[in-house]
Amino acid sequence: MTTHRLYLSVALNSTGSAARSWAAPGTRWNRFADWNHYLRSAQLAHEGVFDIVFVSDHPALQRDNTSRPIHSFDPTVLFSAVAATVPDIGFLLTASTSYNSPYNLARRLATLDHISGGRVIWNVVSSFNPDIAANFGAAPLPERAERYRRAEEFLQVVKDLWLSWDTPAGPAPQGALWDETTARRIDHHGEFFDVAGPLNVPIGPQGHPVIAQAGASDAGIDLAARHADIVYASLLHKQSAFDYQARLRERALAHGRDPGDIRLLPGLTVILGATREEAYRKHEALHGRRGEDGLIADFLRRNWAVDLDARIDPDVPLDPALFAYTEDQKRPVGFVKSFAELAAAEPVTPRQLVRRVEGGHRLAVGTPREVADTILDWWSSGAVAGFNIHIPVLPDGIAEFNEKVIPLLQEAGAFPTAYDGSTIRERLKLPDPRSR
Amino acid sequence: MTTHRLYLSVALNSTGSAARSWAAPGTRWNRFADWNHYLRSAQLAHEGVFDIVFVSDHPALQRDNTSRPIHSFDPTVLFSAVAATVPDIGFLLTASTSYNSPYNLARRLATLDHISGGRVIWNVVSSFNPDIAANFGAAPLPERAERYRRAEEFLQVVKDLWLSWDTPAGPAPQGALWDETTARRIDHHGEFFDVAGPLNVPIGPQGHPVIAQAGASDAGIDLAARHADIVYASLLHKQSAFDYQARLRERALAHGRDPGDIRLLPGLTVILGATREEAYRKHEALHGRRGEDGLIADFLRRNWAVDLDARIDPDVPLDPALFAYTEDQKRPVGFVKSFAELAAAEPVTPRQLVRRVEGGHRLAVGTPREVADTILDWWSSGAVAGFNIHIPVLPDGIAEFNEKVIPLLQEAGAFPTAYDGSTIRERLKLPDPRSR
Ligand SMILES: Cc1cc2nc3c(=O)[nH]c(=O)nc-3n(CC(O)[C@H](O)[C@H](O)COP(=O)(O)O)c2cc1C
Ligand SMILES: Cc1cc2nc3c(=O)[nH]c(=O)nc-3n(CC(O)[C@H](O)[C@H](O)COP(=O)(O)O)c2cc1C
Repeated sequence: MTTHRLYLSVALNSTGSAARSWAAPGTRWNRFADWNHYLRSAQLAHEGVFDIVFVSDHPALQRDNTSRPIHSFDPTVLFSAVAATVPDIGFLLTASTSYNSPYNLARRLATLDHISGGRVIWNVVSSFNPDIAANFGAAPLPERAERYRRAEEFLQVVKDLWLSWDTPAGPAPQGALWDETTARRIDHHGEFFDVAGPLNVPIGPQGHPVIAQAGASDAGIDLAARHADIVYASLLHKQSAFDYQARLRERALAHGRDPGDIRLLPGLTVILGATREEAYRKHEALHGRRGEDGLIADFLRRNWAVDLDARIDPDVPLDPALFAYTEDQKRPVGFVKSFAELAAAEPVTPRQLVRRVEGGHRLAVGTPREVADTILDWWSSGAVAGFNIHIPVLPDGIAEFNEKVIPLLQEAGAFPTAYDGSTIRERLKLPDPRSR
Repeated sequence: MTTHRLYLSVALNSTGSAARSWAAPGTRWNRFADWNHYLRSAQLAHEGVFDIVFVSDHPALQRDNTSRPIHSFDPTVLFSAVAATVPDIGFLLTASTSYNSPYNLARRLATLDHISGGRVIWNVVSSFNPDIAANFGAAPLPERAERYRRAEEFLQVVKDLWLSWDTPAGPAPQGALWDETTARRIDHHGEFFDVAGPLNVPIGPQGHPVIAQAGASDAGIDLAARHADIVYASLLHKQSAFDYQARLRERALAHGRDPGDIRLLPGLTVILGATREEAYRKHEALHGRRGEDGLIADFLRRNWAVDLDARIDPDVPLDPALFAYTEDQKRPVGFVKSFAELAAAEPVTPRQLVRRVEGGHRLAVGTPREVADTILDWWSSGAVAGFNIHIPVLPDGIAEFNEKVIPLLQEAGAFPTAYDGSTIRERLKLPDPRSR
């Protein structure tokens, strides 16, 4: 099912999606610690008429200190400063249901939704990293099933809180400011939470924030089918996108929702060159490498901790057993399943793979025309509603994308030339939760 | 001990410090739900060269719906949007150690400290309202002693986290971005918290946020003596301020701190008129009343839930027994103790009391000259470092204070005419925590 137009989001984490983007020539290596860097990136995204800026999040300093610290500033506080100065664009921010309390998070997101005039999207994650658990107590990370039960209950509580106190409008009331009909306790008592309410922030401009979800396990898909307006994913093959939509549709129908209200926006890493060869050389340079063999060695080491040696032929299709995953593995299902599906759909050699995946997401490496065409192809065939674009080196990579790719998408009539709708909910053509 | 100059903070909560400020003539009654109202208030405070804007906080919708909803937007998110657009001024925001986790709160405050360029002050509270507890679980509000033990441990953890990862500066490092000497785990294991660290936000422009505290029980004073740079309080009598300082000094010395590093900034509600009579009429009108008897009736009902009737003579000093408090009462000690001390220092009739207290804080009601004089009197005698000004009707009351009172303080040489210092720590002349 094709959306009336293509939607584009862009990831603003740290210095860019490339692990060594911090050291990229012509950049300030420590710009991840300067909030003006994020502001500048968001301003560029606004110039490009991007619908959304995105940040993923983990409340822990990552261990790999050769990479950039991908998660640093708190997303709600960071995006609030950006929202105060950058109009129109939506703010997709990640927050964990395992390491927050529903009242506090509901309140922060509602506050940001007011400040931004209804431009907030919450990417609901349940966290999977044991380093995070260690910052929040002695208990280990709960099992996936428990995390998702908590996520489900968390979402219900937060949605109830968000609608618990009506936005005051109209002439000044007489006597009392509110009463039980406009500020209702929610009196939730569940497995994980007891929350009285009401929330002390009134209903915001778009009813409540839009919900995004990225978990790809069965429990993740089920959560998305119940609650998500946007689904973010790692999808390396077009058929995988159709399959993902089919899974979502089936579960959404089972929960009585209209599957047409869910927008699939997988990640897409973009590396541009005037020619494909130039783009390939840029790709290698991002890894601090010359030639494809360097890329392949990097890839094997990062993904499976194996060295490129005589036992691996870069031109022989990889053993699909490498991509095995189970529903109860610790790592997110999505990032492994995407490889498995690609390898199942077509034999793929290491040499091919490194040009198709970058930073866990599908890679579009080539000329602006080639990149625009692959975006348009997936969108016009109805595989996706759009993409979450990963830019290897921020902020300049956004300016390059704006200049070279956006006009091609606009010429194709797929992407707008100006902002429409005042809230992100309107722009995404999603139903208003107040009408439920 | 007199500070080299007077410090002024102004409270930005809701529609103003007057309970019925929402309905004040010439104002938009529902402006508490519009973040531009807070922005406008902060801009006015900046025009007045105020050192600090302040918000108190309770994560619950208050029950008294005839008053304004005094706590709504999340302070960290709200002040981030304000900090992005208003320079110089400090941001004093309240957050509870009982209903947050140290890692998340440390991260949010550190993020805001980066965004604001080192202008954050955290008002550490342990919460006392059972309505808050009901938004965060089935457990009742813990006893004061437990809350303060938790607050002490919380502060230690947060301070350790804030100094756990060095601000990156200088030329790009070779190879790795950080190592164990610049990003240290804190590995805290205590009664309430287990936190591994390091924080994923590097050290900010002022080392870490400045600490403020307002609890007046013995445990509260002890927490302030260990950690606070600023002490906020309700003090109705000058001698009480000296006594409060003496208590703080004694405890600070016991903990090996320099008591001169603690700035006492009690609250002061200001109501201005061209004449004192005009100010008195404004005071009455704020309560929707004519004449002093209306004020007295309001006061008795709000504070002791008693009606003004034949048994109470407004011109007979109040029975000091009315002001009894115990260290284990549920209400904050500070707001009760202040009355008790006033009544002990001099006999005070209801008629006198209503002109000396407003919204729990000392009231200065009169001409700009009278208000400036009482501010200068307390400050120049060394009773206080300054005041946290409560404005009955926001935002216009700030403009009035700027126009009428600030120039008198400046003429007296007590208050600056422009901002000095780049961080709030510098402006307050406080030691840098990195040098400890
Ligand atoms: C594309 C994508 C992006 C994700 N971003 C985050 C993130 O920023 N933070 C996080 O804690 N988890 C993130 N996750 C993980 C989850 O959303 C989910 O909590 C985790 O994958 C475990 O669930 P799963 O096994 O159902 O995938 C992401 C997953 C995918 C596929
Ligand atoms: C002037 C003043 C302002 C306060 N502001 C807040 C506040 O905004 N939020 C809060 O939860 N407690 C607030 N408190 C209460 C506390 O700081 C403290 O948690 C409470 O008073 C219990 O401690 P105590 O009995 O030591 O005073 C305030 C207290 C005073 C005296």
